Amino acid sequence: MKQPIDTSGCIGIVGLGLIGGSLGLELQSIGLQVRGLVHRPVTAERAKARGLAQKISTNSSILNDCDLVILAIPLDKLINPSSDLIGALPKSAVVTDVGSVKGPVLNTWRELHPKFVASHPMAGTAESGVESGKIGLFNKRPWITTPESNTDLAALEKVHQLAIALGSHWITTNSEKHDQAVALISHLPMLVSTALLQTLDSENDHQIIELSKIIASSGFEDTTRIGGGNPELGTSMAMHNTSALLETLSSYRRSLNHLEEVIVSKQWNKFKEELQHTKAMRSSFIRSVPKVNVLD
Amino acid sequence: MKQPIDTSGCIGIVGLGLIGGSLGLELQSIGLQVRGLVHRPVTAERAKARGLAQKISTNSSILNDCDLVILAIPLDKLINPSSDLIGALPKSAVVTDVGSVKGPVLNTWRELHPKFVASHPMAGTAESGVESGKIGLFNKRPWITTPESNTDLAALEKVHQLAIALGSHWITTNSEKHDQAVALISHLPMLVSTALLQTLDSENDHQIIELSKIIASSGFEDTTRIGGGNPELGTSMAMHNTSALLETLSSYRRSLNHLEEVIVSKQWNKFKEELQHTKAMRSSFIRSVPKVNVLD
Repeated sequence: MKQPIDTSGCIGIVGLGLIGGSLGLELQSIGLQVRGLVHRPVTAERAKARGLAQKISTNSSILNDCDLVILAIPLDKLINPSSDLIGALPKSAVVTDVGSVKGPVLNTWRELHPKFVASHPMAGTAESGVESGKIGLFNKRPWITTPESNTDLAALEKVHQLAIALGSHWITTNSEKHDQAVALISHLPMLVSTALLQTLDSENDHQIIELSKIIASSGFEDTTRIGGGNPELGTSMAMHNTSALLETLSSYRRSLNHLEEVIVSKQWNKFKEELQHTKAMRSSFIRSVPKVNVLD
Repeated sequence: MKQPIDTSGCIGIVGLGLIGGSLGLELQSIGLQVRGLVHRPVTAERAKARGLAQKISTNSSILNDCDLVILAIPLDKLINPSSDLIGALPKSAVVTDVGSVKGPVLNTWRELHPKFVASHPMAGTAESGVESGKIGLFNKRPWITTPESNTDLAALEKVHQLAIALGSHWITTNSEKHDQAVALISHLPMLVSTALLQTLDSENDHQIIELSKIIASSGFEDTTRIGGGNPELGTSMAMHNTSALLETLSSYRRSLNHLEEVIVSKQWNKFKEELQHTKAMRSSFIRSVPKVNVLD
């Protein structure tokens, strides 16, 4: 459901990795002028070769004529932006981000720019870097925004148009609930999966390790996929969503203790009933993306 | 690498679910005579309609002429076999099983039949039942055996031929190491994944639950897949491999506590290094099935 974005100038993208690069390809494909700002000259060369924007530079003046700027940089840089970047953002432009936690982003940006809109397109894959951007990344995926009482409504509408233009489902919530939900659905699974790999790593019997390698099947592969994912991203999640993550970890530990009690007390009927319940509840979490959803 | 099996009589399969049904289809496809014994008349009808064996019955006398019988029944029934089944197994036949834990199986069967060979084809999928058997399930998958000092060597060789004939990789180990490895690689991941689903289930904020459903992506889907799997199988794993599972759970909890400490103390460089290490070690557990492997 792609629609035009109401923009007379160009759209700036800061960072041309998976999200930024995909945005550049998509926005050009619907006829818009895109300007890309990247940090390193070698990245600029690769981004130019891939055609991720019509103009790409390491000089922040490339953003001068933009009326919408998307900050698609890693969370660390987003939360600690350079003064050069801050100075290069036109005051009249709408500025949005793609960060995977929203509280710390708003703490930084609500004072830095009058037209800042916090947003989070849920469109990651395991890939990253200037080679990973692709068409179709946002189609039918949720694009969450966490506006505050002082968020500029016209700016919010512009980012809404952007999300709809790329085929995303626009979701409105607040940053606290967003950050708790991503802790539950994304950051805790990363931790749980990492701990599973570390458990294997702490096994001392070489023969058991070798046998485990032989018998590891799709169940193991699936359960450990995000624990074996991007270390920078995993660290960034834990660093910037620490309190929500630790809260979900406490809840997770209670679940684990409970299951252990059921096993130790050999309540097998109860154990089976719980597995039946988790199987049923899981299905409501898989592929249930609504078209439009306003949560508060 | 399919090779003929040295068998003059027919091959009996007890139970025609995913593993038994797949074995029936495969063995017929290489020209062998297969007899299927099932518990319920309705299952027999469906198995006949699907052609899972040339002859299928609920009467155990169907095994009379078999010189190889494969027990493809659920672990509970395998460990507590009916007297009818025990009586129906020809004394001269080689008998093997497909159970996913080997210690309890050997405790039951080493005294029940002189030519019993404990084995475990690692070829499960999420499906089960008489409709799920399919060609190709065992191809290039490990088929583990856990012989003991008094295992009949000719019987062992016959099951070896069976595994090779179906394209499996034949692996020899002992039941203790097998059961510890499956706890680490299969039963612990099931528990870890179930606990993750229960953590979501224990969230009380309705908006966070709804938002979590919206943003749940492939990472969540992967990590919870086996926790949302077959409840009977999960219970059977926990019931029959309890001590190995609880041991790995203790080790897992130490890994989780360790990661929590690193987060609480904000040692982000250390956290990233650990994620880099688990990412690297995971790759050695994925798709590393050797052609032939003897572990002890």
